[in-house]
Amino acid sequence: MPRRVVALAGGVGGAKLADGLYRALPSDALTVVVNTGDDFRKYGLYVSPDLDTVLYTLAGLAHPVNGWGLADDTRQMIEMMKLYGDEAWFGLGDKDLATNLLRTEALANGQPLSVITQDLARRLGIGATLLPMSDDQVATIVDTVEYGSQNFQEYFVRFRWQPVVKRLEYRGSESAAPAPGVLEALESADLIVICPSNPVLSIEPILQIRQIREALQNRRAPCLCVSPIIAGSALKGPAAKLMAELGMRATAAGVADYYGDLLDGFVIDDADHASSQDISTRVWVSNIVMRDAGDRIRLASELLAWGTELRRGSEVRGQ
Amino acid sequence: MPRRVVALAGGVGGAKLADGLYRALPSDALTVVVNTGDDFRKYGLYVSPDLDTVLYTLAGLAHPVNGWGLADDTRQMIEMMKLYGDEAWFGLGDKDLATNLLRTEALANGQPLSVITQDLARRLGIGATLLPMSDDQVATIVDTVEYGSQNFQEYFVRFRWQPVVKRLEYRGSESAAPAPGVLEALESADLIVICPSNPVLSIEPILQIRQIREALQNRRAPCLCVSPIIAGSALKGPAAKLMAELGMRATAAGVADYYGDLLDGFVIDDADHASSQDISTRVWVSNIVMRDAGDRIRLASELLAWGTELRRGSEVRGQ
Repeated sequence: MPRRVVALAGGVGGAKLADGLYRALPSDALTVVVNTGDDFRKYGLYVSPDLDTVLYTLAGLAHPVNGWGLADDTRQMIEMMKLYGDEAWFGLGDKDLATNLLRTEALANGQPLSVITQDLARRLGIGATLLPMSDDQVATIVDTVEYGSQNFQEYFVRFRWQPVVKRLEYRGSESAAPAPGVLEALESADLIVICPSNPVLSIEPILQIRQIREALQNRRAPCLCVSPIIAGSALKGPAAKLMAELGMRATAAGVADYYGDLLDGFVIDDADHASSQDISTRVWVSNIVMRDAGDRIRLASELLAWGTELRRGSEVRGQ
Repeated sequence: MPRRVVALAGGVGGAKLADGLYRALPSDALTVVVNTGDDFRKYGLYVSPDLDTVLYTLAGLAHPVNGWGLADDTRQMIEMMKLYGDEAWFGLGDKDLATNLLRTEALANGQPLSVITQDLARRLGIGATLLPMSDDQVATIVDTVEYGSQNFQEYFVRFRWQPVVKRLEYRGSESAAPAPGVLEALESADLIVICPSNPVLSIEPILQIRQIREALQNRRAPCLCVSPIIAGSALKGPAAKLMAELGMRATAAGVADYYGDLLDGFVIDDADHASSQDISTRVWVSNIVMRDAGDRIRLASELLAWGTELRRGSEVRGQ
């Protein structure tokens, strides 16, 4: 079994697979590198939706239905905001505010996001290493037909990803450095996993950081990806709609194409088994819908086994 | 009836009388000048307990039992803080966070506290003018026998005002200016009311601002005060204990002495009627316990009537 695994993750689907890997591995074996292109300020708080989704999921505290946010959370603060006449379109939960307050205060005190994130993870008892892709600010900007350029959260939450997207911009990525620990984790990894997250919204911001992309291109460990698309649809969120709007094939094969030679293997759902032939990398067909903890651990275990096999066979990257 | 009334107020007792005045007067007739010596930062938020107590009370949203905080508030954020291992000794309510977030964000954007406070009051439908004593920072520091110097909230909330107080300091007051509107309100007032708030913790920080004290000393309107002490005890909080520790008489008469010639009249409770002779200013004896809205309005109406009588009789300040 791999001893050092790095997962690249974004939102709910990514967090679920990261959780499966965390539970299938020794508790300190996993490093999760998380998209922060969705981060933004709201009510003066530094909100980092993907980091928190992974944080809460690995801590076993995530909302069981939504996947994001905390179980048994409430919206009292938001209700009071409405009383003040605020539109309150971003529904921060009351418990969730604790995380956002601690992070915002620590940032104001000059701590880097990566240090803060690790501290929060430790305080919730998480043994895995949880890292933002960068301590520098990268903002995913969505250029839409209807409303022009929008911050990601406006597009995603306020307008419920209904606007038609013309173009995405990852503002700040050209000058952003990987967070401390990211490159080291990629270089020493036995296995790299690209989680079933939105390729253009959740994973691409990570890949836009030049040194991270180069580390992936120069990887020694196999890099496996689980498709976020099943039978032409995303299980959750706008992946399929957005890929189509951007002129990509909104299929599992389209995702594999998108990542290209970054992948040594691609896991697709049973429902897509017929499309194996359209995929240029090695394919593993499985049930990739993660309904419960058992599904997560099983899928993670299959990935770990496949990764081990690829390394043993020295098949990686044509060696 | 007075057309322009200024009330100086601190915590719960002060907020109740301010509310009585607000309800007994035309809605724009009242200006409440509020102590901000208790303000502090917690979790990066700028917390202003006395301002919020007055805000919530005048908006009809205050917690009916505590007097401070909001009705039907919850502590989900605080519970999550505890999960993070935080001591969480300051119990910010979830709804209350909305106020603190809006204020903190507006301060960070460079707005003065007085503008922010008026904005919040308007948004909650309050017709009265609500002003912090100053836009500058003044911090009440409590020097205790057991723990040395403490910030006010540590003394008051964390240690539940149990430490023995040697001395109080109003840090920053020597250079603090009155908030815009405070002096104008005092100068144009028909009646000034010092609310039944802790004299040394809630009112003295206001009086420590030189220009406010001078405006009171040079007042044209009568200044009336309602005793925060009844039969040697404070209805709420540490007033009596603290006055005794500081070598003052912990009685209604002791409060009147404390304010000295700032007062043109002093309202004491029926329970203290025998002490009238110990009080050097005019005395009004009434039932000053404010159990419900009716009590507040009745006591406020008595004050307004007395103030009118004092002005009519040109008796003010020995004229």
